[in-house]
Amino acid sequence: MRIEDLMEPLIVAGVRLGVVCAGIRYPNRRDLVVVELAAGTQAAAVFTRNAFCAAPVTVARAHLAAANPRYLLINTGNANAGTGRQGLIDAEASCRALAEQTDRQPEEVLPFSTGVIGEPLPLSRLVAGLPSALAALRPDGWADAAAGIMTTDTRSKSASRRLTLAGREVTVTGIAKGAGMIRPDMATMLAFVATDAAVDPVLLQQILVEAVAGSFNAITVDGDTSTNDACLLLATGQSGASVPPVGDDHSCFTTAVGEVCVELAQAIIRDGEGATKFITVLVEGGQDVAECRQVAYTIAHSPLIKTAFFACDPNWGRILAAVGRSGLDDLDLERVTIHLDEIGIVRNGGRAPDYTEEQGQSVMARPEITIRVGLGRGEAVARIWTTDLSFDYVRINAEYRT
Amino acid sequence: MRIEDLMEPLIVAGVRLGVVCAGIRYPNRRDLVVVELAAGTQAAAVFTRNAFCAAPVTVARAHLAAANPRYLLINTGNANAGTGRQGLIDAEASCRALAEQTDRQPEEVLPFSTGVIGEPLPLSRLVAGLPSALAALRPDGWADAAAGIMTTDTRSKSASRRLTLAGREVTVTGIAKGAGMIRPDMATMLAFVATDAAVDPVLLQQILVEAVAGSFNAITVDGDTSTNDACLLLATGQSGASVPPVGDDHSCFTTAVGEVCVELAQAIIRDGEGATKFITVLVEGGQDVAECRQVAYTIAHSPLIKTAFFACDPNWGRILAAVGRSGLDDLDLERVTIHLDEIGIVRNGGRAPDYTEEQGQSVMARPEITIRVGLGRGEAVARIWTTDLSFDYVRINAEYRT
Repeated sequence: MRIEDLMEPLIVAGVRLGVVCAGIRYPNRRDLVVVELAAGTQAAAVFTRNAFCAAPVTVARAHLAAANPRYLLINTGNANAGTGRQGLIDAEASCRALAEQTDRQPEEVLPFSTGVIGEPLPLSRLVAGLPSALAALRPDGWADAAAGIMTTDTRSKSASRRLTLAGREVTVTGIAKGAGMIRPDMATMLAFVATDAAVDPVLLQQILVEAVAGSFNAITVDGDTSTNDACLLLATGQSGASVPPVGDDHSCFTTAVGEVCVELAQAIIRDGEGATKFITVLVEGGQDVAECRQVAYTIAHSPLIKTAFFACDPNWGRILAAVGRSGLDDLDLERVTIHLDEIGIVRNGGRAPDYTEEQGQSVMARPEITIRVGLGRGEAVARIWTTDLSFDYVRINAEYRT
Repeated sequence: MRIEDLMEPLIVAGVRLGVVCAGIRYPNRRDLVVVELAAGTQAAAVFTRNAFCAAPVTVARAHLAAANPRYLLINTGNANAGTGRQGLIDAEASCRALAEQTDRQPEEVLPFSTGVIGEPLPLSRLVAGLPSALAALRPDGWADAAAGIMTTDTRSKSASRRLTLAGREVTVTGIAKGAGMIRPDMATMLAFVATDAAVDPVLLQQILVEAVAGSFNAITVDGDTSTNDACLLLATGQSGASVPPVGDDHSCFTTAVGEVCVELAQAIIRDGEGATKFITVLVEGGQDVAECRQVAYTIAHSPLIKTAFFACDPNWGRILAAVGRSGLDDLDLERVTIHLDEIGIVRNGGRAPDYTEEQGQSVMARPEITIRVGLGRGEAVARIWTTDLSFDYVRINAEYRT
């Protein structure tokens, strides 16, 4: 299996992207992205499980059930969430406007919005921006689109992999946005991954769900699941190569999709609001994955642990307290171990005898740190990624109106 | 029913308190408190449910099962948590030292510790402080004891109520400490409430559990349940009045105990680390209390909501998103309502038509605000108290080693 990891987002045959400044919320800011998909493109999608899902999520779900998508219509600056019935009418109207200009059916357009919650969608400005977005469509528009979907993000996020399937070159490229309100319950706020391989739609959904479980569903900044999360996997089939349901080519393709999703998910954490540290929480030795994730998220959401990491303080007592309150039945404290990177700090329910504060300090100085917890009661493992909690997180969220 | 609310902590016949600077962690800081209880005092207690409970919690539980307590031995500066076997040995040794100096059995001494986790208890300094703490015992030592148990607290916390039972005057006085690592799963870090009424021990435990449910178990600063939480209710019987198992006198007494616990619990929130706002989260119309509490804690732990309150930003979209992700099955969004104090902001799943940003701003300028959520699917109600999330929370927890 050979997969190339590319720095710049690669063109995907059958996909063109157009980006413009439509003045949705701020002037002179790229905030409207149209993605055109070739005929025959298959789509798989996962959406937020927040009960208050945004209007575009409801509309995109319905459209996906009715037709194969030919256009994605993405705006920033306004989430069209908490907007009630009018929000649904506006989301539908935006799809209808794009469909009319491209001679498609409204169901062939999927809407996505991100930005402030609870404000009416500025529909007329959005619609007014569509002709120039369509005029701007080009195959190498991925980098601009990655920039065009940013909100509080400080960096655009894209990833590409190239592989060979049955002698043909296949590309997987994805872009994502998100920096706060990040605890995706299936996907980050917005992520779009496309390939020019041909993939059966049932298989495509399965590949997406698996990739998301180990990437976008394994990150958290603040535990706040957004109302607008969406992740799409699009397969244009334009490379002429098909992904088989099993075998080496299947593995190679799913690995490439998984790698793109992990790279994008990690990029979201690296760009987490106010983040100064990239923290991997690895919980091993659980009875099942669910309890490993439960412990991992308890650690990842603890404000006390997150502020200690911000302060480069190897405050393992707070990690130990979080493991203790994570709600596991019959946890045997004597078997619990905690490592910071390669340094063992907790053994037998207390500080490891050979641990020194200097060792802890030296690990905490690193920009990327793994907290490894051993539960000593099974074989299951879970890994998630998170950030520290800094002054800047408070500043950004005290200033920004989501 | 007439209960007097007193500003200064009142003497409780049968209780004497002594406070000294023992140099547990810092010099010249009151960090050792001894509480002497008259013979015949009954005790009820609830402790942390953190699986990693501290050594003194384990020892206090065992001693309570073996004997009626005659002394409480409380130190700050060191939590004696995460200290393994040696921690238990040290906690036992501290009780033995006090028992020897007072001619009691070690089981008649209950140890309590709060402060840094994972450091060995400085036993010799603690023991060296005992003679002066015993020499300092006096009935009016409550205010000094309230100061002596503080860690990151900025204010000492005490409350008193006076009532009449069967023609006799009865007093209930309590002190508490706690400002961070506060999501008690039965009690705050440390709270001691005493009365000179006589109360049957089974009834006493029942009264404590009920009082704690509506006070210490209804607050959260950061969602981090401590390893050392403990709450005691002590009844010396020295007033000559007994609390009956039912009836008006019973109600009057349980109300007084409940009020003392609520006043102490609210004082902890008012003094929450970095707190600039006192926030009541009231969730109504749930199917049961558990789901109301689930929604309330999801709101109270959301960093996005907490930072918005710090910024005086009526960001109701974040509250709506938190209700949506709180995990309730079949929540009917159309029935959800959200108020900030008297201002209705969300109705029918979106912004209330008559709501204006000015109304929201005027509420957010207040130091005490109630977030009221109506679920519209039942009769159950839950109320909890919490703080905002400020720069100072991050500063305090980046600087302080718990």
